[in-house]
Amino acid sequence: MIQVGIIGGTGYVGAELIRLLSNHNKVNISGISSVKYRGKPISSIYSGFYQTDDLECENQQDIIEKSDLIFLALPSGLSQAIVEKAVYENKICIDMGADFRFKNENLYKKWYGKTFLNKSLHEKSVYGLPELNRDEIRRTQIIGNPGCYATSVELALLPLLSENLIEEDGIIADCKSGITGSGKELTESSHFVNCNENFTAYKVANHRHTPEIEETLSNSFKKNVKLTFVPHLLPINRGILSTIYATPKKALSLEEVHEKYSQFYKNENFIKMLPLGEVSKISGVRLSNYCHISLHYDDDNNKLIVISCLDNMMKGSAGQGIQNMNIALGFSEKEGLTTLPAVF
Amino acid sequence: MIQVGIIGGTGYVGAELIRLLSNHNKVNISGISSVKYRGKPISSIYSGFYQTDDLECENQQDIIEKSDLIFLALPSGLSQAIVEKAVYENKICIDMGADFRFKNENLYKKWYGKTFLNKSLHEKSVYGLPELNRDEIRRTQIIGNPGCYATSVELALLPLLSENLIEEDGIIADCKSGITGSGKELTESSHFVNCNENFTAYKVANHRHTPEIEETLSNSFKKNVKLTFVPHLLPINRGILSTIYATPKKALSLEEVHEKYSQFYKNENFIKMLPLGEVSKISGVRLSNYCHISLHYDDDNNKLIVISCLDNMMKGSAGQGIQNMNIALGFSEKEGLTTLPAVF
Amino acid sequence: MIQVGIIGGTGYVGAELIRLLSNHNKVNISGISSVKYRGKPISSIYSGFYQTDDLECENQQDIIEKSDLIFLALPSGLSQAIVEKAVYENKICIDMGADFRFKNENLYKKWYGKTFLNKSLHEKSVYGLPELNRDEIRRTQIIGNPGCYATSVELALLPLLSENLIEEDGIIADCKSGITGSGKELTESSHFVNCNENFTAYKVANHRHTPEIEETLSNSFKKNVKLTFVPHLLPINRGILSTIYATPKKALSLEEVHEKYSQFYKNENFIKMLPLGEVSKISGVRLSNYCHISLHYDDDNNKLIVISCLDNMMKGSAGQGIQNMNIALGFSEKEGLTTLPAVF
Amino acid sequence: MIQVGIIGGTGYVGAELIRLLSNHNKVNISGISSVKYRGKPISSIYSGFYQTDDLECENQQDIIEKSDLIFLALPSGLSQAIVEKAVYENKICIDMGADFRFKNENLYKKWYGKTFLNKSLHEKSVYGLPELNRDEIRRTQIIGNPGCYATSVELALLPLLSENLIEEDGIIADCKSGITGSGKELTESSHFVNCNENFTAYKVANHRHTPEIEETLSNSFKKNVKLTFVPHLLPINRGILSTIYATPKKALSLEEVHEKYSQFYKNENFIKMLPLGEVSKISGVRLSNYCHISLHYDDDNNKLIVISCLDNMMKGSAGQGIQNMNIALGFSEKEGLTTLPAVF
Repeated sequence: MIQVGIIGGTGYVGAELIRLLSNHNKVNISGISSVKYRGKPISSIYSGFYQTDDLECENQQDIIEKSDLIFLALPSGLSQAIVEKAVYENKICIDMGADFRFKNENLYKKWYGKTFLNKSLHEKSVYGLPELNRDEIRRTQIIGNPGCYATSVELALLPLLSENLIEEDGIIADCKSGITGSGKELTESSHFVNCNENFTAYKVANHRHTPEIEETLSNSFKKNVKLTFVPHLLPINRGILSTIYATPKKALSLEEVHEKYSQFYKNENFIKMLPLGEVSKISGVRLSNYCHISLHYDDDNNKLIVISCLDNMMKGSAGQGIQNMNIALGFSEKEGLTTLPAVF
Repeated sequence: MIQVGIIGGTGYVGAELIRLLSNHNKVNISGISSVKYRGKPISSIYSGFYQTDDLECENQQDIIEKSDLIFLALPSGLSQAIVEKAVYENKICIDMGADFRFKNENLYKKWYGKTFLNKSLHEKSVYGLPELNRDEIRRTQIIGNPGCYATSVELALLPLLSENLIEEDGIIADCKSGITGSGKELTESSHFVNCNENFTAYKVANHRHTPEIEETLSNSFKKNVKLTFVPHLLPINRGILSTIYATPKKALSLEEVHEKYSQFYKNENFIKMLPLGEVSKISGVRLSNYCHISLHYDDDNNKLIVISCLDNMMKGSAGQGIQNMNIALGFSEKEGLTTLPAVF
Repeated sequence: MIQVGIIGGTGYVGAELIRLLSNHNKVNISGISSVKYRGKPISSIYSGFYQTDDLECENQQDIIEKSDLIFLALPSGLSQAIVEKAVYENKICIDMGADFRFKNENLYKKWYGKTFLNKSLHEKSVYGLPELNRDEIRRTQIIGNPGCYATSVELALLPLLSENLIEEDGIIADCKSGITGSGKELTESSHFVNCNENFTAYKVANHRHTPEIEETLSNSFKKNVKLTFVPHLLPINRGILSTIYATPKKALSLEEVHEKYSQFYKNENFIKMLPLGEVSKISGVRLSNYCHISLHYDDDNNKLIVISCLDNMMKGSAGQGIQNMNIALGFSEKEGLTTLPAVF
Repeated sequence: MIQVGIIGGTGYVGAELIRLLSNHNKVNISGISSVKYRGKPISSIYSGFYQTDDLECENQQDIIEKSDLIFLALPSGLSQAIVEKAVYENKICIDMGADFRFKNENLYKKWYGKTFLNKSLHEKSVYGLPELNRDEIRRTQIIGNPGCYATSVELALLPLLSENLIEEDGIIADCKSGITGSGKELTESSHFVNCNENFTAYKVANHRHTPEIEETLSNSFKKNVKLTFVPHLLPINRGILSTIYATPKKALSLEEVHEKYSQFYKNENFIKMLPLGEVSKISGVRLSNYCHISLHYDDDNNKLIVISCLDNMMKGSAGQGIQNMNIALGFSEKEGLTTLPAVF
């Protein structure tokens, strides 16, 4: 059995990794670490894990030592030093935060206020979107797991940019996320009474996933992709729906575009192109690793509208992390991710 | 006391009118009609009205006769004949449906599948957006109360178009509404389990409020306003948030734009321009007749982002109906609409 | 105009008082105080009050001076000293917290860990449940506004105990409250992700409203009323539903019991006895000062089941405070409380 | 591979069975039937199953023929004739409805208005609560899967009645369920706007699970168990929390009672006794087959309070059905049921 450890195991990403790894047939959880809850069982935080997964929080070094692969679920900036050490000890690292999502240090510095500790690590690391970088993921030791919004927008745009079907600038991504995206920390914006029966935007055209999306897509397609990204907060626990508006370069038929998406994703396990006429919805992907994409066209205004849905804790985070782990370890990509969506 | 009747009093719009009229000092509810619930008290449908407003549903003709002003809250196409009769009897009519929202019969025919019964009524009628047509509302006998989404988008765009600040085409309105907007009828899309913890778009770039907005704004400003409008369904009871993307004609400062909006709305009771840096949210307007507007700018992509919020049952429907009634009857526009938002 | 001040104006009770007082025709808000937000406008906390009620938080002494009547919305123990001072200056005080809910200092000490600062104040003070103590409320200077759960349970039991219809002990009150009841403070139990799609009990048979209910009912009816009270947290903003199980002293007909309740409450503005066969529900009272009561009987087990509903922020707190103010100032009891429930 | 069919596959119970069986390593779904959706793929109803489980609805006879074990998820009264036929063909039947939950035909007749078609089937059938009847389940061909509320209340009471710790009458079960319990059919009580921000009781002391619980517990323990059962509807999709009040026969320590429960359930996979001081909550069991039980004591009133939680679609229905299938087929009881709760 491969030993898998989680550093920062008590936040939502850590807890979701525990839930998924507990049900994975080819790996074993070697341990989890937490600075805040050291010595306490995970079930003291999440009572749903009581007597089923009563892992006790240990320290980071112990986890590194007894693991073959390590998930890092930490605030920005804290993963780099640990990854450096772990890589030296020949471990595989999957960073669930933003430390290894950027190639351009200036972007990382501008949006996260941190620098690259060791540039060679960033040269080796791969942006962990399997539908884009599967081969590189297979060969690297350091995977930067993508952001939740970023995954949702990138999966919606990959076929269009790959086929050169849309203008690269002027793309609008109007995204809506459930509140697990804000994490476990108590804040005004995650207080029940402030969220429930409410809806609002935040970080309007100023969210950190904007540069992540722009850099990833620009580098991949040698274009200067530009997008206006506005995130909103939905009064639900899980799920992201992104409504994306793009301008076709020339007149197109929706059937053709649908066919191109279907071709592009034909070997993918987790990307489902909904039939024309259907609309993606969050309940169609909830608690699963699937991403649903639906296509629409406003011919009056020549706007292509792509709607993509995923579960922000699954394909948007921990599920994608497991998918990356499966690739890195040579397992079937679906291992541990076969549960169908909880449609209600 | 002015006598006010409601034809079609048992749907959500009717019930909200009852709630508001019951608290209005200058009018009296003369009666309500319902085909389906005739002879039954309104509290048999809404138990919250028990022993406080036990109006019994009567027939339409009786309501017309004993009323000075009539609200019509009926499915499309059913208001025209009643309005014709009522106007003949010198009553004022406020149609809460779509029958009197269009000047162009072809648009109405295309989107609602009905024709104009009597063209002269449509010539007399006024589109009931007070911030646009206050003077005409004061002088007419027939008011077509605007659609909920339409109100939200129009209020967001009026100052921009009036000042010629944005391109008239390529406007994108990504709108999100609570589920009261779908009405009282039982449907798959309003079944609790299908809505809760879910979010989706519907009628993508194909919603009936698109032509209403385009006609209203184009006629008012003698421009050919074109917009891509995508509505979504929020798992909440009340409220609309519209995120609108427009392209400025030339470089602008957000401060200037804010100043122009503030000037444009400076005498309005119900439109509040939030300070720059704030973001409109549904909880800020819930259960009130206010519309909150916040302004944002993506200078990287030269997109102006306007976020407007209102309560779809209030400023988006019944509240605006009361405001129109107040104008038509010469009352203070705020009469019966002074309740502050229920901020939680 | 009577001048009314709020000390502790920024919590949920304070904000709800502001919402109600702003719409009250016979009083004026003289000012609000807050230690934490001193100098800031209330709209910086609740954006729904923006440009409609931009009161600035002042200090307590200023509020006392310019007010004829003072609401105190403070954590336990902090009201007594302020009330002492205000009463000396001939102000009327309505304490929204627990400091003046108890006659028995030992109970207050046991459950709140505080002592009576000045016993004479507690002798003068009246427990502000108008349906029980209207005359005393009219004549006092100090009103202890009841707890939300307590109001709901007491209103359900008053007629039964008054008519000696049930055993005084063995009463079970299984109560469910919306999350505004937990207040504005950020806590694990009010974090959206912890509340949403969840439901749990808390302080099982150990909640501070138990002694309040037992003392109030025992003193009023010269009985030793004993109850098992279990509160639960509903994933909604507002509302309490209490399901109360009591054992009739002798066989009874539900019609008779309903008649006795109807008699008992026949002159009350805010208590509605639902017809037999109906069940109280939170949506029937939401955003109003009404309390709905429905009666049920399990004849197989000789249990009378009383279900009472109210809005915890209205009849359960601020609404009842306004009702008490109206009584104390000799206004109509419904003044400022006439809004019908928001049935959706 | 064992072939498993579902008759009535398109309701919520059928859909949840599909979700679970798709992830079960030892069985294969042979097919599903639906009268209403015959010929249509299941993904046309639940888009989450799109391209992952696109079973087409067939007719009942085909399903019977190609299955070794059959789940029946049908309205009351419709299972008996099918079970008769299937049993004759040596299939194992698990009825998810009420047709095989009763031994006493009169009770079934009184509460469901139907008769026993073939008494010998009811003699052979076993009430499918594994914690009570595991051995009989292993040996029967007909399993009557228990009701959701019934499972929750019975699991809470089994150890108490088995150990003769409480009075058998006067038990009160105040239960709260999510809205999937009301099923897929469109009704006023499952309309989003009627459920959301609302809470109410229904069928007060008059719900069909009352006789099911009373008969099961009375027969098992040779006592006359009597209970007052009041169900309520929570504005959430999944989960039941039951708060149960019982009177101890003699003074007891909570530690002792906890120890007896722990002994009683020590070999059970799915029943977790929470430590004293903790309170069961729905989020602790969501999307899993676990039942959490917490114990509380009101010593002032000598009431034992037991709070049990389960997911009504899992341990309350489909999950328990799979557990019964595993027992009947000799598999490990946890097969296909190992997913940890979705704690958020």
